[in-house]
Amino acid sequence: MYRSHTCGELRISDVGKSVQLSGWVQIVRNLGGMSFIDLRDRYGITQLAFNMEENASACEMARKCGREFVISVDGIVRERSSKNPNRTTGDIEIAVANLTILNESQVPPFTIEDESDGGEELRMRYRYLDIRRNPVKEKMIFRHQIALETRKYLSEHHFLEIETPYLIKSTPEGARDFIVPSRMNPGQFYALPQSPQTFKQILMVAGMDRYFQIVRCFRDEDLRADRQPEFTQIDCEMAFVEQEDILQTFEGLTKSLFKNCLNVTLPDFPRMDYDEAMELYGSDKPDLRFDLKFVELSRMKGKGFSIIDQAESIYGFVVKDKEAAFSNKDINDLTEWLKRPQIGAKGLIYIKFGTETIKSSIGKFYNDQELNDLGLEIGASSGDIVFILLGEKDKTLKQLGDFRLEIARRLNLIPEGVFKPLWVVNFPLLEWNDEAQRFFAMHHPFTSPLPDDKHKMQSSDRTTLSSIRAAAYDLVINGAEIGGGSIRIHDRNLQSKNFEILGFSKEEAEKQFGFLLGAFEYGAPPHGGIAFGLDRLCTIMQGNTSIRDYIAFPKNNTGRDTMIDAPSSIDEKQLTELSIQLKLETQK
Amino acid sequence: MYRSHTCGELRISDVGKSVQLSGWVQIVRNLGGMSFIDLRDRYGITQLAFNMEENASACEMARKCGREFVISVDGIVRERSSKNPNRTTGDIEIAVANLTILNESQVPPFTIEDESDGGEELRMRYRYLDIRRNPVKEKMIFRHQIALETRKYLSEHHFLEIETPYLIKSTPEGARDFIVPSRMNPGQFYALPQSPQTFKQILMVAGMDRYFQIVRCFRDEDLRADRQPEFTQIDCEMAFVEQEDILQTFEGLTKSLFKNCLNVTLPDFPRMDYDEAMELYGSDKPDLRFDLKFVELSRMKGKGFSIIDQAESIYGFVVKDKEAAFSNKDINDLTEWLKRPQIGAKGLIYIKFGTETIKSSIGKFYNDQELNDLGLEIGASSGDIVFILLGEKDKTLKQLGDFRLEIARRLNLIPEGVFKPLWVVNFPLLEWNDEAQRFFAMHHPFTSPLPDDKHKMQSSDRTTLSSIRAAAYDLVINGAEIGGGSIRIHDRNLQSKNFEILGFSKEEAEKQFGFLLGAFEYGAPPHGGIAFGLDRLCTIMQGNTSIRDYIAFPKNNTGRDTMIDAPSSIDEKQLTELSIQLKLETQK
Repeated sequence: MYRSHTCGELRISDVGKSVQLSGWVQIVRNLGGMSFIDLRDRYGITQLAFNMEENASACEMARKCGREFVISVDGIVRERSSKNPNRTTGDIEIAVANLTILNESQVPPFTIEDESDGGEELRMRYRYLDIRRNPVKEKMIFRHQIALETRKYLSEHHFLEIETPYLIKSTPEGARDFIVPSRMNPGQFYALPQSPQTFKQILMVAGMDRYFQIVRCFRDEDLRADRQPEFTQIDCEMAFVEQEDILQTFEGLTKSLFKNCLNVTLPDFPRMDYDEAMELYGSDKPDLRFDLKFVELSRMKGKGFSIIDQAESIYGFVVKDKEAAFSNKDINDLTEWLKRPQIGAKGLIYIKFGTETIKSSIGKFYNDQELNDLGLEIGASSGDIVFILLGEKDKTLKQLGDFRLEIARRLNLIPEGVFKPLWVVNFPLLEWNDEAQRFFAMHHPFTSPLPDDKHKMQSSDRTTLSSIRAAAYDLVINGAEIGGGSIRIHDRNLQSKNFEILGFSKEEAEKQFGFLLGAFEYGAPPHGGIAFGLDRLCTIMQGNTSIRDYIAFPKNNTGRDTMIDAPSSIDEKQLTELSIQLKLETQK
Repeated sequence: MYRSHTCGELRISDVGKSVQLSGWVQIVRNLGGMSFIDLRDRYGITQLAFNMEENASACEMARKCGREFVISVDGIVRERSSKNPNRTTGDIEIAVANLTILNESQVPPFTIEDESDGGEELRMRYRYLDIRRNPVKEKMIFRHQIALETRKYLSEHHFLEIETPYLIKSTPEGARDFIVPSRMNPGQFYALPQSPQTFKQILMVAGMDRYFQIVRCFRDEDLRADRQPEFTQIDCEMAFVEQEDILQTFEGLTKSLFKNCLNVTLPDFPRMDYDEAMELYGSDKPDLRFDLKFVELSRMKGKGFSIIDQAESIYGFVVKDKEAAFSNKDINDLTEWLKRPQIGAKGLIYIKFGTETIKSSIGKFYNDQELNDLGLEIGASSGDIVFILLGEKDKTLKQLGDFRLEIARRLNLIPEGVFKPLWVVNFPLLEWNDEAQRFFAMHHPFTSPLPDDKHKMQSSDRTTLSSIRAAAYDLVINGAEIGGGSIRIHDRNLQSKNFEILGFSKEEAEKQFGFLLGAFEYGAPPHGGIAFGLDRLCTIMQGNTSIRDYIAFPKNNTGRDTMIDAPSSIDEKQLTELSIQLKLETQK
């Protein structure tokens, strides 16, 4: 036996008990004839006390221990003379009778403290030491709780967790697949799933009714800061449902997770059309923790300022009571920020409603009276500042959306510990891509149009097709997309039509999705679903920003696991068995 | 809305209610002016009644429906005139007011009944129809329950489910890896995990204490009937434990699964040494549902029968009261069965203790008195038959073990609905391989020797090394290995020694497991674990034999998913991006 209790368990009521603890040495402190060790395990820290006079051998052994040594001790629980109110075990200590060193440790390359001195790269390479730190450990525990509560909730609501295969078939549509050569089928390859999308639809055809799975998904994309080649989805599908059933069910799940894991009671989730979200916030995942709603400003036209008069669209927002917060330099900075290629705006118009005067970058073309009138119309008055962008409508809205977030960050307008969930609904079904000269599915090619828009699928007019709304929905919390889904097409003809609009030939559609189209011929029920990003859900719920923190063994930006040093080269023999060989570019 | 109730929900107490149901048409029956549809969903079957006089339009619509059409109906629940006591909904039917066909269906290629007329290949290709059948559906539901109960139990016992990566590093030791080319790291490859073994040990070093994961594992092996390239493990690891803690914990889990999912109360699990299991049953996973224990028979030597006198070992077992069940032809059949290359025995000796006479294949060398005396010693008397094999000890025991199972099957000695769990313990640490002229790890290279045998690791004598017992254990139920695990080595030096015995050079060990060896230098706690095969656990618990039935989308013996037709060829462009090309053998 290695322990009778954990290092987070003993209290003042345990005083006098004979106990055994095991764990890691957080720190050794020597004070004259006494030594103290803070002993740490997953559950907490308990102070061990050694007295040279009472027990010289144990005390000497304690003095040999270095940081992160693994030790086991037995002794008696006693009340501490100087208590530590910041620690649950802070009222007691262990008067140690015997100490055994179970394993030694080299000096760790960074401190195992809440605030470590180790940089990210070092901590990733020694992830096993990083995970010993409270903030990382707590995130793993939180993730476990979220997954467990999700499973309990969905199971109570008659969902079945059904495992779908990881070795599937490559489909060129969408993101790039990871592929796996098949040894037994030379020249052929499996692909790792980007999501179990087709399988969960197949399960609905199979009559399974309510399916879920917490499942790994894979995308071989160039990695951005917050993207991982493998990530985890809470993947769900229901049959015999309409959009409303799905929104209700998963609003319920979300509320239950917030209640059970954070003790936060969320109100009913508001809903917003995609068009409205774009029009008011320039984003399909608006952050509603702060205001800064957009106003349409074509009313500014007709004063002889050609840039405005000729603009396709003009949008702006009012920042209340912050006129004084923006110096000329600030405004120049912001203009430069907007002009960066990531944003791509041409410039920034502002109107500062000072207590004395109105200052504006368009003061030449609008007199104070006109600006005051405009302010009255859009709710800007003394002390406020208005920012305005103009140009092509879609671009302008997106630029202003990014700008809105930047202003909120700079002005600290985003409150902490506040959650603003929102269903964004009625997404467009199709997105025209100028480069490819074809439509792409905004959600995915199995998404159903809204019943009212179904007839438009027969049109060949690009504007009509662009206006088709999908039965698609995203769950957004605090400006992050937590989940998304849609009602699926369950009719083979409509699905074929959709593939046709998306530019698939009959043969391509058959080759890639033939099994799904085939299944639709044997009694497919109406169905729909949703998938949540588990990594992101955890991140947002705890008010953090990096999903990587919630992954036990994440990969870096080049897809490497620096701890195990993967990927790596493999034996020639393995390649031969798989009927492949390397074809490296010798020059770049 | 598509339904107010499911097809398994309505009872006599619901009579008079206005309801809406949706599901699949199991069968349409037309009786004069009446039609009946059995409507099926995941939850059951409800009878729908249509009356041509009362509602001609609905009735005509009903007569248009074919098998597996998806329909939605509303109507009133009424008591049936002729009840069906075999169905939970058999007291009622729905007097249908309206019927809507939601989707038509082609005639399915096999019947959607408990006993289908479809062969396995056809059912796999149309797995979405196969899953609609009760026996398949029920297996998916059972699997879901087992997984959920496992998670609840382990979470209540402070285990954390932590996800480990699927894109890891290839290690030549053990089975063959599936590999995944890395696009971003040309010439380098990930491997899919055969198990999260090293990661779970890393998590123990990371202080996570009690880990589990229900996780997919991958092995690129030639497939036998009951093997899948991807399979699911309940993977567990604990720190600060000894073997006894692990056995107790997972005996508890197993009992709880049997209780909660089968309502079966298992007694405490007996334990048996590996050596004893081999000596008594010729198997490290003995089926204890029937007896047929082996007896060692070297006492037969010394009667001048050279085959026996010169045999390295002689073993046999007594079949009580079955002497008459074996004709000469039966014994010839059994002898042929034993001589097949899969078994490889040289021949079979029998002694039939008839009521009148003793008949034996060795009657020439032993008189009746001698055979009677032998019978007395080994508990065989009138009416019994004794089977005896001889030869090299290990081979003979294994052959007799297979023979024991075959006799039990032929004589129907295996009772149904009985569960005989058993811990097999004290496995050998090392297994000598004559072909490779080296030791292999019997369990895996991280397994610890028993404390008492640790000193033998320093020996270079093959017999001494072969005699080292491991702190390894298997959970066996009804002759199937349900789970297995071990206490791990947590000392870097001992681990290095083990790699040395296994013939790894320092460089190879470093290259393949350097990160684990490195982790062991930073305070690795004593730890150990176990992994259960989820697919097999479900199979054995329900008294079945094929794990494939418990996998929603299994692969066939050549690793193909015939439903989605994977693996398949991929675009040249994909290969180029991955810096690989095909190298097919043109001739075979």
